[in-house]
Amino acid sequence: MNYQKALLFVLLIAFSCAKQEKVMVSDSENQHPKLILTAKGVKDIRAQLGTIPIFDNSLLKVKEEVDAEIALGIETPIPKDYSGGYTHSRHKQNWFVLQKAGVLYQILDDEKYAKYVKDMLMQYEEMYKTLPLHPKTRSYARGKLFWQCLNDANWLVYVSQAYDCIYNYLSEGERNKLETNLFKPFADHISVDSPQFYQRVHNHSTWGNAAVGMIGLVMDDEELIQRALYGIKGKEMDKTAKDDDGGFINKSGKAGFLANIEEPFSPDGYYNEGPYYQRYAMYPFLVFAEGLQNVKPELKIFEYKEGVLLKSINALLNLSDADGDFFPLNDGQKGMSYYNSALVTAVDVSYHYGNQDPGLLSIASKQNSVLLDDSGLAVALGIREGKTKSFEKKSINLSDGPEGKQGGVGILRNEDIELVFKYASQGSSHGHYDKLSYSLYENGEEVIQDYGLARFVNIEQKGGGNYLKENKTWAKQTIAHNTVTQNETSHYKGKYEIGSQNHPDLHYFSSDNKEVQIVSSKVRNTYSGTDLHRTMAIINDVDLEKPFVLDIMRVTSDKKNQYDFPFYYFGQVLDANFEYKTTSTLKPLGKKNGYEHLFLEASAKADDKNSKFSWFNNNKFYTITSVTDKKDELLFTRIGANDPEFNLRRDPALIVRRNNVKNTTFVSTIESHGSYSPVTESALNAKSSIAEVKVILDNKDYTAIMIANVKGNTKLFITANSDALKETKHNLKLNGKNYSWMGSYYYKQTNK
Amino acid sequence: MNYQKALLFVLLIAFSCAKQEKVMVSDSENQHPKLILTAKGVKDIRAQLGTIPIFDNSLLKVKEEVDAEIALGIETPIPKDYSGGYTHSRHKQNWFVLQKAGVLYQILDDEKYAKYVKDMLMQYEEMYKTLPLHPKTRSYARGKLFWQCLNDANWLVYVSQAYDCIYNYLSEGERNKLETNLFKPFADHISVDSPQFYQRVHNHSTWGNAAVGMIGLVMDDEELIQRALYGIKGKEMDKTAKDDDGGFINKSGKAGFLANIEEPFSPDGYYNEGPYYQRYAMYPFLVFAEGLQNVKPELKIFEYKEGVLLKSINALLNLSDADGDFFPLNDGQKGMSYYNSALVTAVDVSYHYGNQDPGLLSIASKQNSVLLDDSGLAVALGIREGKTKSFEKKSINLSDGPEGKQGGVGILRNEDIELVFKYASQGSSHGHYDKLSYSLYENGEEVIQDYGLARFVNIEQKGGGNYLKENKTWAKQTIAHNTVTQNETSHYKGKYEIGSQNHPDLHYFSSDNKEVQIVSSKVRNTYSGTDLHRTMAIINDVDLEKPFVLDIMRVTSDKKNQYDFPFYYFGQVLDANFEYKTTSTLKPLGKKNGYEHLFLEASAKADDKNSKFSWFNNNKFYTITSVTDKKDELLFTRIGANDPEFNLRRDPALIVRRNNVKNTTFVSTIESHGSYSPVTESALNAKSSIAEVKVILDNKDYTAIMIANVKGNTKLFITANSDALKETKHNLKLNGKNYSWMGSYYYKQTNK
Repeated sequence: MNYQKALLFVLLIAFSCAKQEKVMVSDSENQHPKLILTAKGVKDIRAQLGTIPIFDNSLLKVKEEVDAEIALGIETPIPKDYSGGYTHSRHKQNWFVLQKAGVLYQILDDEKYAKYVKDMLMQYEEMYKTLPLHPKTRSYARGKLFWQCLNDANWLVYVSQAYDCIYNYLSEGERNKLETNLFKPFADHISVDSPQFYQRVHNHSTWGNAAVGMIGLVMDDEELIQRALYGIKGKEMDKTAKDDDGGFINKSGKAGFLANIEEPFSPDGYYNEGPYYQRYAMYPFLVFAEGLQNVKPELKIFEYKEGVLLKSINALLNLSDADGDFFPLNDGQKGMSYYNSALVTAVDVSYHYGNQDPGLLSIASKQNSVLLDDSGLAVALGIREGKTKSFEKKSINLSDGPEGKQGGVGILRNEDIELVFKYASQGSSHGHYDKLSYSLYENGEEVIQDYGLARFVNIEQKGGGNYLKENKTWAKQTIAHNTVTQNETSHYKGKYEIGSQNHPDLHYFSSDNKEVQIVSSKVRNTYSGTDLHRTMAIINDVDLEKPFVLDIMRVTSDKKNQYDFPFYYFGQVLDANFEYKTTSTLKPLGKKNGYEHLFLEASAKADDKNSKFSWFNNNKFYTITSVTDKKDELLFTRIGANDPEFNLRRDPALIVRRNNVKNTTFVSTIESHGSYSPVTESALNAKSSIAEVKVILDNKDYTAIMIANVKGNTKLFITANSDALKETKHNLKLNGKNYSWMGSYYYKQTNK
Repeated sequence: MNYQKALLFVLLIAFSCAKQEKVMVSDSENQHPKLILTAKGVKDIRAQLGTIPIFDNSLLKVKEEVDAEIALGIETPIPKDYSGGYTHSRHKQNWFVLQKAGVLYQILDDEKYAKYVKDMLMQYEEMYKTLPLHPKTRSYARGKLFWQCLNDANWLVYVSQAYDCIYNYLSEGERNKLETNLFKPFADHISVDSPQFYQRVHNHSTWGNAAVGMIGLVMDDEELIQRALYGIKGKEMDKTAKDDDGGFINKSGKAGFLANIEEPFSPDGYYNEGPYYQRYAMYPFLVFAEGLQNVKPELKIFEYKEGVLLKSINALLNLSDADGDFFPLNDGQKGMSYYNSALVTAVDVSYHYGNQDPGLLSIASKQNSVLLDDSGLAVALGIREGKTKSFEKKSINLSDGPEGKQGGVGILRNEDIELVFKYASQGSSHGHYDKLSYSLYENGEEVIQDYGLARFVNIEQKGGGNYLKENKTWAKQTIAHNTVTQNETSHYKGKYEIGSQNHPDLHYFSSDNKEVQIVSSKVRNTYSGTDLHRTMAIINDVDLEKPFVLDIMRVTSDKKNQYDFPFYYFGQVLDANFEYKTTSTLKPLGKKNGYEHLFLEASAKADDKNSKFSWFNNNKFYTITSVTDKKDELLFTRIGANDPEFNLRRDPALIVRRNNVKNTTFVSTIESHGSYSPVTESALNAKSSIAEVKVILDNKDYTAIMIANVKGNTKLFITANSDALKETKHNLKLNGKNYSWMGSYYYKQTNK
């Protein structure tokens, strides 16, 4: 702390000596900086410096980092490596440092930063003008500094900000040199020379568009700006071509930044690839939007599509668990969270350009960092003025699809229990074949997991840090998810062409009743002739310690099938009410579609009423109670078969297998209960509180479930399977008793 | 906090109204309380109350807890259940509440607490006088309130304190009733009626001795006190009988509290069963010692055996990792830590009766709790007066055996790296067959694990919370540990009779050089005709990011054998320099001695020089570099085969298998390096810094190892295998160069 304070002191001294008269504010469009930092913003920041702790600290950290880099000297090696290798890491580091050094030059008015930026840019200029394609050939769109255009675009998004910051520091001749030999050809390489990368609706292209647009804004090059907003003029793409990940390059023919806003975001702000990729894509969306707002305010970019960019930030923050970690839907790497720097941008931009939601200030405080620009200043001032409130995450339904009509994601929250129900569309090339699947969290810990991706991002030893083949053979397959797999085949035959043309539909979502948070969705054609309808609720019942999950998965088919219904729990088996037999030799459960990656550890015949299974994890107890009959099989599996490079985690599952039936309904409850302390060695509430779960009625109109608990109380839950409108009145006779209610579902304690 | 403050206020008001004249201080031995709380202590506590935050808060918590119990009413159910069941838990809860209520009566002088204790004791008296043996039959020594005498003894250790606190509140008639019908027969049941429990040297007996002694001190019953100190007079035990755990009941013939101090503690204070059981045994040792010190100060119990009781507390605190979790040597359950209430006792007693080590105050502060007695008051005053210093854990060697001549445990510490090297004796019935094994920690996280026990203490669903059969078949076996297994057989044939008659010996321990912490030990007869000699060091070398482990295991035998040498790492395989082949079907590695519990996942032929293996865990990178030749096999295993009730964790290991050799030396380095952030997705220093490890010389006098790092620097390490005295001078010619040094080992960078 003392060191930090001393530095701050030096910093402020340095600043007070700076020639303030240098800063001139004008409305002229040619005033620089203008892109992200603005001349007015710089003036305001300088006026507040030293009185805005979160900003001052962010500035100090950046200064330390950049000063250390300046001390090391400039390195611009000839490109050679994949991600994780030296040249890749160095050029990546350079783009960050350039952007930061530019900002420091503006805020601290210290020429050493401008000179550093200029010197490095000149080195790049010298190298780039004769630079061939990157020697590594794996990408569908090779860059020059990096093995893929995507990273070249990343570079330009940051470096255009640095250029903006030192624009006025450079002579016209220097600017001409850089623009002619570096920036213009760089922008061309990632756009007109790489249309398969640039001319599409995809997070890669968003980076490309932003890169071209931002350098265009700085250079005041209208042609580049138009290319950024609307794509390469007149360029028609092959609609059947695919990229490395198996996704179509450009099926719709759409391109450009506005199309990239239009297509992937639903009106609720859900990004169709899921939060992990939204986080990645977010930065170019927001930083280019900031630039457009500053330079071309008449475009009203933040109001585009009814303000979807700002809505998407709220959606993204809601797609995180109690610790701020994003739910790993589709190809999401676990551990990515709102602590990522892209989210610092998102939170600050949302606060500044949105409606100054004080909840955002609590996230900014946790991030303990702000942008060194006008929006970061606004956040720092908000925090200084004590406006912070906590960011409350409630149950939320986020529609998917450009018009919000391609399913969605429903997040149910009740006390510490959080359920993420995925009924979204395919999710572009990063989508998984997991219709109506879910994952379950308790206070930020995974209870029933979504596997996420099979990749170790940027860890070179694991396939260069890129997608591993098990991502396709395991992580994307249906059996890797908590949903129904029919006849050991993935949804939509595991084919992108089919998956991307289908999606589930919302049946209903209800969070009005605090004690019953619920979502219900239907999907057709995951298998030809088979429909799925799943209703999931978190119910906070007075007789149970914590809210429990009720899960009703209805399967209707035109023929008899085998259905597998897994629970990807974590931890150690405690207890079961069925006799399972472990096998002394472990064999793969199947041959393909992900089954080849599951070892069968034990199997059992199910109980004729309820199969109960308890496990223990993170010093808490969990119990599944599933309605079964004695023809059902129960399989204990573990991931890791046919995994020649140990790319997969050895995680367990319990699978309910139901064979040779046409229509069936999987009904289960999942309880979290009690706790264990290894210090006091006391186990509290270690046993399930649910005595029985029973299906009372199950037809096309209603499913009625009786839940009896160990206190002897019985609860009835009824969901409307056909007409679930809020205002519909229902009358139903069950076991001689009449039940009437209005709305999608009924839940009431029947005796006490 | 407000609620707490309000309570404190009420508490102090209540106290100021109390009739202080009731407290009379006298030297009379019949003054009560006298056992743990003393009349003088009560007076001092009352004088300081409200000014000693940690004490006040501890008092508040106890008051809240006891008041809640009083509100619930008294329950003394007829005994019925095993651990974890209702009657067990209730009687266990009662003993705690009784002790606490007694203390509250003394400190707060509120009769409601005395009445509560009296009423409950009278209910116990009513029940106990006709109570048969506990109905559950599994114990070798059944109790009456509980299924095992051990828990009955626990009860009496606590309840004798409660009785002491309300002794003067009771009429003589009431005291006679309780003593005649409850306390005396209770003490007799757990001693003269259960000699197999009482008359031995074992942690169970310590509880028994303390229980009998403490009630004897309160009742002023000299016969009970003598029985406690010296065992049942004239009682000879069958020297060949065994208990439930397979340990001898009483082979030595020794018994009583003093023998229980004498036998299990080494002069350094190491407890022969290991820290988990020491923690469990600690409470009766210390609380009875406190009672003896208070009532019979002439016995000088804290000076007994050169102050071993206080030394043992220091040893125990040193047997914990950076988080305070005890190393799970022998049958230790992971997660037990110095936050356990027994350690609150230990820390407070050590501070008060020892030399007021200010480092203990920092642990007391972390515990955030003190005893409500004279020693807790001393700690609270020390903290209040700002005496706290941090408790520094350094490398430490703890001898084992009553005279410190039966091996020991060496703990090496260097920055965040901590290595626990076990060369101790068998460790009584809770010992594992793991001579010269080790476990490795980094900042409180396990890097190379010791499995610990196969038991879920107090979790009823797992075998009633008792030892599982896999504890014998797996956890105790040699192959479950990081040491050498010969011919798939455990050390000492896995036989307690042999194990308990043998032990390793220290070769040397050296922590003088800050950069080289080192321990070396030899053992004969783990296998007939085979000797083991292991030297382990943590070396902090300027060329490496973090201190690394150097491990030299010399095996000399009179015949050719197969040697297995495992590394129980945690996490995911990253990389190896050898070609391994996974198997699509997993089979157990062997048929017995623990091998039946290991699945073979993959195997490889070793590299002809060094086999390198890297893994990834908790966002850190680790690499083993092991000297191998191409005849060596490398086996990837996973625990969990032949585990019909899923009692074992599915943890991985890499095993170096060397077959058909007589003498051999396993030489390896283990590095922790770098880090990964899932938020920034950057991998730092993800690769090993060690280029080569080579054995230059290996004979009965010296082993010399060359370690070359990726910077091109080469280091030489030489350990003296025969004469390792500090003052011995060595001269050695290696590759034409002369090396001379004094002491056990040589380590120096040879070129730079």
